Amino acid sequence: MSKIRIGLIGCGVVGQGIMRLLHEHADSIEARLGSPIEVRRIVARNPTRDRGPYVDRKWVTVDADAVLADPDIDIIVEVMGGIDPADGYIRRAMEHGKSVVTANKALIADRGHELFELAATRGVDLYFEAAVAGGVPVIRVLREALTSDRVVALKGIINGTSNYILSRMEEQAGLSFADALAEAQSRGYAEADPTLDVGGGDACHKLAILATLAFGKKVGIEQVATEGIERVSAVDMAFAKRFGFTVKPLAIGRALDDGRLDLRVHPALIGSRQVLASIGGALNAIYIDGAAVGPSMLSGLGAGALPTAVSVVSDIVDVGRNLRSEARGRVQHTARGAEPALVQDLSDHECRFFLRFSVRDESGVLGRLAGLLGDEHVSIEQMVQEGQGDRPTAVVMLTHPAGEGGVRRAVERIDALPEVVEPTHVLRIEEDRP
Amino acid sequence: MSKIRIGLIGCGVVGQGIMRLLHEHADSIEARLGSPIEVRRIVARNPTRDRGPYVDRKWVTVDADAVLADPDIDIIVEVMGGIDPADGYIRRAMEHGKSVVTANKALIADRGHELFELAATRGVDLYFEAAVAGGVPVIRVLREALTSDRVVALKGIINGTSNYILSRMEEQAGLSFADALAEAQSRGYAEADPTLDVGGGDACHKLAILATLAFGKKVGIEQVATEGIERVSAVDMAFAKRFGFTVKPLAIGRALDDGRLDLRVHPALIGSRQVLASIGGALNAIYIDGAAVGPSMLSGLGAGALPTAVSVVSDIVDVGRNLRSEARGRVQHTARGAEPALVQDLSDHECRFFLRFSVRDESGVLGRLAGLLGDEHVSIEQMVQEGQGDRPTAVVMLTHPAGEGGVRRAVERIDALPEVVEPTHVLRIEEDRP
Repeated sequence: MSKIRIGLIGCGVVGQGIMRLLHEHADSIEARLGSPIEVRRIVARNPTRDRGPYVDRKWVTVDADAVLADPDIDIIVEVMGGIDPADGYIRRAMEHGKSVVTANKALIADRGHELFELAATRGVDLYFEAAVAGGVPVIRVLREALTSDRVVALKGIINGTSNYILSRMEEQAGLSFADALAEAQSRGYAEADPTLDVGGGDACHKLAILATLAFGKKVGIEQVATEGIERVSAVDMAFAKRFGFTVKPLAIGRALDDGRLDLRVHPALIGSRQVLASIGGALNAIYIDGAAVGPSMLSGLGAGALPTAVSVVSDIVDVGRNLRSEARGRVQHTARGAEPALVQDLSDHECRFFLRFSVRDESGVLGRLAGLLGDEHVSIEQMVQEGQGDRPTAVVMLTHPAGEGGVRRAVERIDALPEVVEPTHVLRIEEDRP
Repeated sequence: MSKIRIGLIGCGVVGQGIMRLLHEHADSIEARLGSPIEVRRIVARNPTRDRGPYVDRKWVTVDADAVLADPDIDIIVEVMGGIDPADGYIRRAMEHGKSVVTANKALIADRGHELFELAATRGVDLYFEAAVAGGVPVIRVLREALTSDRVVALKGIINGTSNYILSRMEEQAGLSFADALAEAQSRGYAEADPTLDVGGGDACHKLAILATLAFGKKVGIEQVATEGIERVSAVDMAFAKRFGFTVKPLAIGRALDDGRLDLRVHPALIGSRQVLASIGGALNAIYIDGAAVGPSMLSGLGAGALPTAVSVVSDIVDVGRNLRSEARGRVQHTARGAEPALVQDLSDHECRFFLRFSVRDESGVLGRLAGLLGDEHVSIEQMVQEGQGDRPTAVVMLTHPAGEGGVRRAVERIDALPEVVEPTHVLRIEEDRP
């Protein structure tokens, strides 16, 4: 095979990063693959826009159908994002016998199971390393390096925007969520509409993809209990620190002994000496606990044009190796033909909790809080009370391990007390091993 | 292909771990590979020894030649270790057209270049993930995930014994190297003869393998500047901590702008907030800086029967996938046909240094130390002097960045002064980015 011929769908920052990498590292990629890679056509909405020095306008077209059907193209690379029309493009490409490389997490999380079936039926490859955690090769590690092991749990920081915001709030005492978000936006770490990142939706998509691979069950995005970081305050951060914790935006998947999965995306307190606690800024990290391999971790840049392009182009090389050796479909999707996942209800989850109450400083209020918690068998490990000038008194409790259902019922009754002036903030504590 | 048939050479703890993993995870491995894996023969010196519940004595033979030539065996898995006779076994296996999976770091570091040529000539695979960092998939990440990138630098903790010893000395102030080593031996983290681990030889082998893959040049083990951790004392550890550092056993490879490589294995001071500083105990970690992907890290257990077996069995699955799809030789060795590496002389290396002098507390001695350093253009950033009861006074200096040649010349002259009572201890400081 003389050349690996690419049709690129989408040419924003990631697409331009791919073009740059293919240009700058052309010699080493050709040496490693054994063939040069040639991008023959680029599908983009505006063919006349300037896309920098690595994109010749004569390659750009608006006609996706012609590219998808072009017999001189071997691999379709989709980096346009979004469910539609990307979904249809990828299906048509595979129906035309082309292998596909995509960076589209929403699409893989939502429709991956159907797409992998189609890839298997058509005997083509569908690779998606860049869909989760940008330049961190977690898909490859789960699909290949740990193929001989059984994953027990994974715990990750997989949304760089949320990690940047919480890291800044940790560094600078008193910084509010709103100010940290505004700073992230001004520095390009958060979008103008940050909902998908800070609300947990992005991490939910990624966790659904990772859990499907790690546990070999079909996980739907609606099965992940998802909370954003918007309610984490400077006060939470300060109390967490005082107890020896930091607050991190986590995505957690665990295989329970009864066969169900525990799947959650939310901010959580972790011990400040845990390795994940040292993952700051826009970095991503995924901690994987394997039955045989033990605790493992991967970290790196989870977003950005070039880190994402590294994952896309390495997938192109991998798919290209399969084309050269006529070995398409060499690695089957782990969860093909697997059962749908059964998921533990969040109310059955047990852990230690961090509870921050906002109360009027009246005699007997602590007793009433403790009494209502005790009614639900929630026992208190540590407590700090602190007046805050003219604001309500903050009472922070760390509980012993307790069922989430009971904690939520107790908090609901507590929040109805007349001396409680703001809704109680509940954060989970994640222990050292996932 | 109905079965992937294995001949296993060596059946110590790693071999037994492989047998256990193949047994316990047989169903998931078969589902992922598409074929069952069957170990048909095991070569071991003592065929009657009890090797636990996963090894049937009737599979065990002393006759390596018969196994290497057996037409009913597809893959030879070598976990006996050592250069000879493993080298001959692997060559004969490949000459018989069999692919090979090995965990043998000494062999790959010393004779890898010839073995990869032979594998290419014979059209077979030679995989070696377990040769470096046990269960950490760094070989796969360098060969595949970063195949589209250019590695600028790598910095790793790749000897678990040394890391265990220095972590214990850091945790427990005053603990000597000798006592920490004895503790590591009693807990199974160090061998009776620990020379290869604490002397740096083991990390040197691993760095030669990693640097060959990362930089695409043939690196020989004699090209790695190697120092052990034996001279790190409780006093060094305490002073390092006072300056905000910890001491870690590092392996460092950097591609310099002039095309040469900087290759070093030695204990070094790193900032105690660096992620590598939080890698404690027997964990391994490798920090990789890619031109496009940026800073990335992998960590996990670098030794032990099961973590190592995970890497070996995942290699077996990978090679098995190539056999099933008739795609042997699908991934070529990165440095095949590459030029031998050119390496920077250690005397040309520049960094900040930690210098611990042992002097008699006499007036003028600090001036003489500073003067001799100044003669070699070594300037001092910080200094601490501390009497130690009836022992010589410790003077610790952190230098500004300085050339190692000048530092060594100055120290040689300093150590000849009559008021200097013990050889000066020189440690390098590694800055945040590799």
